[in-house]
Amino acid sequence: MSLEIERKFLVKSDAWRGLAEPVRMRQGYVATKDGTTVRVRVVGGEAFLTLKDHAVGLVRHEFEYPIPVEDAETILDTMCGNLVEKNRYRIPAKEAGLFWEVDEFLGANAPLVTAEIELPDEKTVVELPGWIDHEVTDDHRYKNNNLAEHPFSEWCERKETK
Amino acid sequence: MSLEIERKFLVKSDAWRGLAEPVRMRQGYVATKDGTTVRVRVVGGEAFLTLKDHAVGLVRHEFEYPIPVEDAETILDTMCGNLVEKNRYRIPAKEAGLFWEVDEFLGANAPLVTAEIELPDEKTVVELPGWIDHEVTDDHRYKNNNLAEHPFSEWCERKETK
Repeated sequence: MSLEIERKFLVKSDAWRGLAEPVRMRQGYVATKDGTTVRVRVVGGEAFLTLKDHAVGLVRHEFEYPIPVEDAETILDTMCGNLVEKNRYRIPAKEAGLFWEVDEFLGANAPLVTAEIELPDEKTVVELPGWIDHEVTDDHRYKNNNLAEHPFSEWCERKETK
Repeated sequence: MSLEIERKFLVKSDAWRGLAEPVRMRQGYVATKDGTTVRVRVVGGEAFLTLKDHAVGLVRHEFEYPIPVEDAETILDTMCGNLVEKNRYRIPAKEAGLFWEVDEFLGANAPLVTAEIELPDEKTVVELPGWIDHEVTDDHRYKNNNLAEHPFSEWCERKETK
Protein backbone atom coordinates (compact mmCIF):
# COMPACT_ATOMS: atom_id res chain seq x y z
CA MET A 1 0.00 0.00 0.00
CA SER A 2 1.23 3.47 -0.76
CA LEU A 3 -0.14 6.97 -0.53
CA GLU A 4 -0.49 8.87 -3.77
CA ILE A 5 -0.31 12.64 -3.40
CA GLU A 6 -0.48 14.39 -6.73
CA ARG A 7 -1.51 17.51 -8.58
CA LYS A 8 -2.64 17.66 -12.19
CA PHE A 9 -2.39 20.52 -14.68
CA LEU A 10 -3.21 21.25 -18.28
CA VAL A 11 -0.36 22.05 -20.64
CA LYS A 12 -0.25 25.19 -22.79
CA SER A 13 2.67 24.73 -25.18
CA ASP A 14 4.88 22.11 -26.76
CA ALA A 15 7.99 23.29 -24.91
CA TRP A 16 8.06 20.02 -22.91
CA ARG A 17 8.58 17.94 -26.05
CA GLY A 18 12.09 16.65 -26.43
CA LEU A 19 12.67 16.66 -22.65
CA ALA A 20 11.95 12.90 -22.37
CA GLU A 21 11.20 9.81 -24.44
CA PRO A 22 7.62 8.55 -24.32
CA VAL A 23 6.34 5.20 -23.13
CA ARG A 24 3.02 3.96 -24.45
CA MET A 25 0.31 3.11 -21.92
CA ARG A 26 -2.96 1.27 -22.49
CA GLN A 27 -5.36 1.11 -19.58
CA GLY A 28 -8.92 0.41 -18.63
CA TYR A 29 -11.18 0.28 -15.61
CA VAL A 30 -12.68 -3.00 -14.44
CA ALA A 31 -15.08 -1.24 -12.14
CA THR A 32 -15.46 1.94 -10.15
CA LYS A 33 -17.52 2.67 -7.04
CA ASP A 34 -17.81 5.95 -5.14
CA GLY A 35 -14.44 7.14 -6.45
CA THR A 36 -12.73 3.79 -5.84
CA THR A 37 -11.17 2.56 -9.09
CA VAL A 38 -9.80 -0.79 -10.25
CA ARG A 39 -7.41 -0.14 -13.11
CA VAL A 40 -5.50 -2.47 -15.42
CA ARG A 41 -2.53 -0.90 -17.23
CA VAL A 42 -0.15 -2.31 -19.79
CA VAL A 43 3.06 -0.30 -20.11
CA GLY A 44 6.03 -1.53 -22.07
CA GLY A 45 6.37 -5.24 -21.36
CA GLU A 46 4.68 -5.06 -17.96
CA ALA A 47 1.16 -4.95 -16.60
CA PHE A 48 -0.34 -3.84 -13.30
CA LEU A 49 -3.62 -4.14 -11.43
CA THR A 50 -4.17 -1.07 -9.28
CA LEU A 51 -6.79 -0.21 -6.67
CA LYS A 52 -7.21 3.40 -5.61
CA ASP A 53 -9.72 4.77 -3.15
CA HIS A 54 -11.40 8.17 -3.42
CA ALA A 55 -9.07 11.10 -2.87
CA VAL A 56 -9.20 13.08 0.37
CA GLY A 57 -7.63 16.40 -0.59
CA LEU A 58 -4.65 15.46 -2.78
CA VAL A 59 -4.19 12.05 -1.13
CA ARG A 60 -5.33 8.61 -2.34
CA HIS A 61 -4.48 5.16 -1.03
CA GLU A 62 -3.08 3.00 -3.78
CA PHE A 63 -2.50 -0.74 -3.98
CA GLU A 64 -0.62 -1.93 -7.06
CA TYR A 65 0.23 -5.48 -8.09
CA PRO A 66 2.08 -6.75 -11.15
CA ILE A 67 0.06 -9.25 -13.19
CA PRO A 68 0.88 -11.23 -16.35
CA VAL A 69 0.60 -9.09 -19.51
CA GLU A 70 -1.48 -11.82 -21.12
CA ASP A 71 -4.03 -11.61 -18.28
CA ALA A 72 -4.06 -7.83 -18.53
CA GLU A 73 -4.74 -7.89 -22.27
CA THR A 74 -7.65 -10.30 -21.77
CA ILE A 75 -9.07 -8.20 -18.92
CA LEU A 76 -8.76 -5.03 -21.04
CA ASP A 77 -10.42 -6.67 -24.00
CA THR A 78 -13.29 -8.34 -22.13
CA MET A 79 -14.07 -6.47 -18.87
CA CYS A 80 -13.13 -2.82 -19.26
CA GLY A 81 -15.27 -1.13 -21.88
CA ASN A 82 -13.56 1.90 -23.42
CA LEU A 83 -9.80 2.11 -22.93
CA VAL A 84 -7.46 5.05 -22.47
CA GLU A 85 -4.28 5.11 -24.54
CA LYS A 86 -1.57 7.66 -24.06
CA ASN A 87 2.12 8.41 -24.36
CA ARG A 88 3.77 9.31 -21.06
CA TYR A 89 6.84 11.50 -20.86
CA ARG A 90 8.68 11.54 -17.52
CA ILE A 91 10.44 14.86 -17.19
CA PRO A 92 12.68 15.71 -14.20
CA ALA A 93 11.30 18.62 -12.17
CA LYS A 94 13.53 21.36 -10.76
CA GLU A 95 12.91 19.87 -7.33
CA ALA A 96 15.36 16.98 -6.81
CA GLY A 97 13.71 13.57 -7.07
CA LEU A 98 10.42 14.86 -8.45
CA PHE A 99 9.14 14.29 -11.99
CA TRP A 100 6.53 15.83 -14.25
CA GLU A 101 4.57 13.07 -15.94
CA VAL A 102 3.20 14.52 -19.15
CA ASP A 103 0.42 12.42 -20.68
CA GLU A 104 -0.31 12.92 -24.36
CA PHE A 105 -3.68 11.24 -24.88
CA LEU A 106 -4.46 9.36 -28.06
CA GLY A 107 -7.60 8.25 -29.86
CA ALA A 108 -10.86 9.75 -28.61
CA ASN A 109 -8.98 11.68 -25.91
CA ALA A 110 -6.65 13.50 -28.32
CA PRO A 111 -5.50 16.27 -28.32
CA LEU A 112 -5.60 16.39 -24.51
CA VAL A 113 -2.23 16.78 -22.76
CA THR A 114 -1.98 16.79 -18.97
CA ALA A 115 0.96 17.03 -16.58
CA GLU A 116 0.96 15.41 -13.16
CA ILE A 117 3.46 15.68 -10.37
CA GLU A 118 3.58 13.25 -7.47
CA LEU A 119 4.55 14.93 -4.22
CA PRO A 120 6.21 13.56 -1.08
CA ASP A 121 3.88 15.69 1.05
CA GLU A 122 0.64 17.63 0.54
CA LYS A 123 2.45 20.84 1.51
CA THR A 124 5.33 20.46 -0.98
CA VAL A 125 5.66 23.59 -3.12
CA VAL A 126 6.77 23.08 -6.73
CA GLU A 127 7.88 25.60 -9.30
CA LEU A 128 5.63 25.40 -12.36
CA PRO A 129 7.45 25.21 -15.71
CA GLY A 130 6.44 27.77 -18.32
CA TRP A 131 4.55 25.18 -20.35
CA ILE A 132 2.16 24.41 -17.44
CA ASP A 133 -1.37 25.82 -17.72
CA HIS A 134 -4.01 25.91 -14.98
CA GLU A 135 -4.54 23.23 -12.35
CA VAL A 136 -7.24 20.55 -12.81
CA THR A 137 -6.52 18.34 -9.78
CA ASP A 138 -10.11 18.69 -8.58
CA ASP A 139 -11.76 18.59 -12.01
CA HIS A 140 -13.27 15.11 -12.27
CA ARG A 141 -13.59 15.37 -16.04
CA TYR A 142 -9.82 14.89 -16.33
CA LYS A 143 -9.62 11.76 -14.22
CA ASN A 144 -8.52 8.87 -16.40
CA ASN A 145 -11.47 6.69 -15.42
CA ASN A 146 -13.79 9.50 -16.52
CA LEU A 147 -11.81 9.94 -19.75
CA ALA A 148 -12.40 6.25 -20.48
CA GLU A 149 -16.17 6.68 -20.30
CA HIS A 150 -16.38 10.29 -21.47
CA PRO A 151 -13.48 10.98 -23.86
CA PHE A 152 -12.10 14.50 -24.06
CA SER A 153 -13.08 14.94 -27.70
CA GLU A 154 -16.74 14.65 -26.71
CA TRP A 155 -16.77 17.52 -24.23
CA CYS A 156 -13.74 19.77 -24.80
CA GLU A 157 -14.01 23.37 -25.81
CA ARG A 158 -11.40 24.13 -28.42
CA LYS A 159 -9.92 27.01 -26.44
CA GLU A 160 -8.87 24.59 -23.70
CA THR A 161 -6.74 22.43 -25.96
CA LYS A 162 -4.12 24.94 -26.99
CA MET B 1 -6.87 -16.75 -16.12
CA SER B 2 -9.15 -19.65 -15.48
CA LEU B 3 -12.69 -20.59 -16.30
CA GLU B 4 -15.01 -21.09 -13.37
CA ILE B 5 -17.89 -23.45 -14.06
CA GLU B 6 -20.02 -24.01 -11.00
CA ARG B 7 -23.45 -24.80 -9.69
CA LYS B 8 -24.86 -23.63 -6.37
CA PHE B 9 -27.51 -25.25 -4.17
CA LEU B 10 -29.23 -24.66 -0.87
CA VAL B 11 -28.73 -27.22 1.88
CA LYS B 12 -31.60 -28.92 3.69
CA SER B 13 -30.04 -30.79 6.61
CA ASP B 14 -26.98 -30.91 8.82
CA ALA B 15 -25.88 -34.30 7.45
CA TRP B 16 -22.83 -32.65 5.83
CA ARG B 17 -21.44 -31.58 9.18
CA GLY B 18 -18.51 -33.66 10.32
CA LEU B 19 -17.48 -34.47 6.74
CA ALA B 20 -14.78 -31.77 6.71
CA GLU B 21 -13.08 -29.20 8.88
CA PRO B 22 -14.02 -25.56 8.25
CA VAL B 23 -11.79 -22.71 7.20
CA ARG B 24 -12.86 -19.17 8.01
CA MET B 25 -13.22 -16.71 5.11
CA ARG B 26 -13.65 -12.95 5.25
CA GLN B 27 -14.30 -11.20 1.99
CA GLY B 28 -15.54 -7.99 0.48
CA TYR B 29 -16.14 -6.35 -2.88
CA VAL B 30 -14.09 -3.36 -3.98
CA ALA B 31 -16.44 -2.66 -6.84
CA THR B 32 -18.87 -4.36 -9.15
CA LYS B 33 -20.03 -3.39 -12.64
CA ASP B 34 -22.50 -5.23 -14.88
CA GLY B 35 -21.84 -8.53 -13.12
CA THR B 36 -18.06 -8.04 -13.05
CA THR B 37 -16.80 -8.30 -9.48
CA VAL B 38 -13.54 -7.37 -7.79
CA ARG B 39 -13.24 -9.41 -4.60
CA VAL B 40 -10.72 -9.41 -1.76
CA ARG B 41 -10.67 -12.54 0.39
CA VAL B 42 -8.67 -13.44 3.47
CA VAL B 43 -8.59 -17.17 4.16
CA GLY B 44 -6.30 -18.67 6.75
CA GLY B 45 -2.95 -16.89 6.47
CA GLU B 46 -3.43 -15.96 2.82
CA ALA B 47 -5.23 -13.30 0.83
CA PHE B 48 -6.36 -13.01 -2.77
CA LEU B 49 -7.58 -10.36 -5.15
CA THR B 50 -10.01 -11.88 -7.67
CA LEU B 51 -11.67 -10.49 -10.78
CA LYS B 52 -14.66 -12.33 -12.24
CA ASP B 53 -16.71 -11.30 -15.23
CA HIS B 54 -20.44 -11.87 -15.61
CA ALA B 55 -21.42 -15.49 -16.02
CA VAL B 56 -22.51 -16.83 -19.41
CA GLY B 57 -24.49 -19.94 -18.51
CA LEU B 58 -22.49 -21.62 -15.75
CA VAL B 59 -19.18 -20.18 -16.95
CA ARG B 60 -17.23 -17.16 -15.62
CA HIS B 61 -13.73 -15.99 -16.41
CA GLU B 62 -11.70 -15.64 -13.24
CA PHE B 63 -8.36 -13.93 -12.59
CA GLU B 64 -6.94 -14.48 -9.12
CA TYR B 65 -3.76 -13.02 -7.62
CA PRO B 66 -2.25 -13.51 -4.16
CA ILE B 67 -1.74 -10.24 -2.29
CA PRO B 68 -0.24 -9.45 1.13
CA VAL B 69 -2.70 -10.17 3.97
CA GLU B 70 -1.93 -6.74 5.43
CA ASP B 71 -3.00 -5.07 2.16
CA ALA B 72 -6.14 -7.20 2.05
CA GLU B 73 -7.15 -6.26 5.59
CA THR B 74 -6.70 -2.56 4.79
CA ILE B 75 -8.68 -2.87 1.56
CA LEU B 76 -11.48 -4.75 3.37
CA ASP B 77 -11.61 -2.16 6.13
CA THR B 78 -11.49 0.93 3.93
CA MET B 79 -12.84 0.19 0.44
CA CYS B 80 -15.36 -2.64 0.65
CA GLY B 81 -18.42 -1.63 2.65
CA ASN B 82 -20.20 -4.63 4.18
CA LEU B 83 -18.18 -7.84 4.34
CA VAL B 84 -19.21 -11.48 4.03
CA GLU B 85 -17.88 -13.90 6.64
CA LYS B 86 -18.36 -17.63 6.41
CA ASN B 87 -16.97 -21.03 7.31
CA ARG B 88 -16.18 -23.18 4.30
CA TYR B 89 -16.22 -26.97 4.45
CA ARG B 90 -14.60 -28.76 1.49
CA ILE B 91 -16.25 -32.15 1.16
CA PRO B 92 -15.16 -34.73 -1.44
CA ALA B 93 -17.92 -35.48 -3.96
CA LYS B 94 -18.65 -39.00 -5.18
CA GLU B 95 -17.14 -37.97 -8.51
CA ALA B 96 -13.36 -38.34 -8.30
CA GLY B 97 -11.55 -35.01 -8.02
CA LEU B 98 -14.69 -32.95 -7.38
CA PHE B 99 -15.58 -31.26 -4.10
CA TRP B 100 -18.69 -29.81 -2.51
CA GLU B 101 -17.85 -26.47 -0.95
CA VAL B 102 -20.36 -25.91 1.81
CA ASP B 103 -20.49 -22.29 3.00
CA GLU B 104 -21.98 -21.64 6.41
CA PHE B 105 -22.59 -17.90 6.48
CA LEU B 106 -22.08 -15.87 9.64
CA GLY B 107 -23.27 -12.52 10.93
CA ALA B 108 -26.05 -10.85 8.96
CA ASN B 109 -26.08 -13.75 6.47
CA ALA B 110 -26.72 -16.47 9.09
CA PRO B 111 -28.33 -19.00 9.03
CA LEU B 112 -27.77 -19.35 5.27
CA VAL B 113 -25.90 -22.47 4.14
CA THR B 114 -25.05 -23.03 0.47
CA ALA B 115 -23.18 -25.78 -1.36
CA GLU B 116 -21.23 -25.16 -4.56
CA ILE B 117 -19.54 -27.60 -6.86
CA GLU B 118 -16.97 -26.57 -9.44
CA LEU B 119 -17.21 -28.63 -12.61
CA PRO B 120 -14.60 -29.46 -15.25
CA ASP B 121 -17.23 -29.02 -17.95
CA GLU B 122 -20.69 -27.46 -18.25
CA LYS B 123 -22.11 -30.87 -19.17
CA THR B 124 -20.67 -32.76 -16.18
CA VAL B 125 -23.41 -34.62 -14.31
CA VAL B 126 -23.05 -34.89 -10.54
CA GLU B 127 -24.94 -37.01 -8.05
CA LEU B 128 -26.59 -34.77 -5.47
CA PRO B 129 -26.04 -35.85 -1.84
CA GLY B 130 -29.18 -36.25 0.29
CA TRP B 131 -28.49 -33.02 2.18
CA ILE B 132 -28.65 -30.93 -1.02
CA ASP B 133 -31.80 -28.86 -1.54
CA HIS B 134 -32.86 -27.02 -4.71
CA GLU B 135 -30.47 -25.27 -7.10
CA VAL B 136 -29.87 -21.51 -6.88
CA THR B 137 -27.14 -21.08 -9.51
CA ASP B 138 -29.20 -18.48 -11.35
CA ASP B 139 -30.65 -16.77 -8.29
CA HIS B 140 -28.73 -13.53 -7.97
CA ARG B 141 -29.80 -13.07 -4.35
CA TYR B 142 -27.39 -15.83 -3.34
CA LYS B 143 -24.34 -14.37 -5.07
CA ASN B 144 -21.79 -13.40 -2.47
CA ASN B 145 -21.48 -9.84 -3.74
CA ASN B 146 -25.24 -9.46 -3.35
CA LEU B 147 -25.10 -11.02 0.12
CA ALA B 148 -22.56 -8.36 1.09
CA GLU B 149 -24.97 -5.57 0.19
CA HIS B 150 -28.23 -7.35 0.94
CA PRO B 151 -27.64 -9.88 3.73
CA PHE B 152 -29.76 -13.02 3.82
CA SER B 153 -31.34 -12.13 7.18
CA GLU B 154 -32.94 -9.07 5.57
CA TRP B 155 -34.82 -10.94 2.85
CA CYS B 156 -35.06 -14.64 3.75
CA GLU B 157 -38.33 -16.39 4.32
CA ARG B 158 -38.00 -18.70 7.27
CA LYS B 159 -39.16 -21.74 5.31
CA GLU B 160 -36.08 -21.45 3.07
CA THR B 161 -33.60 -21.78 5.87
CA LYS B 162 -34.42 -25.32 6.97
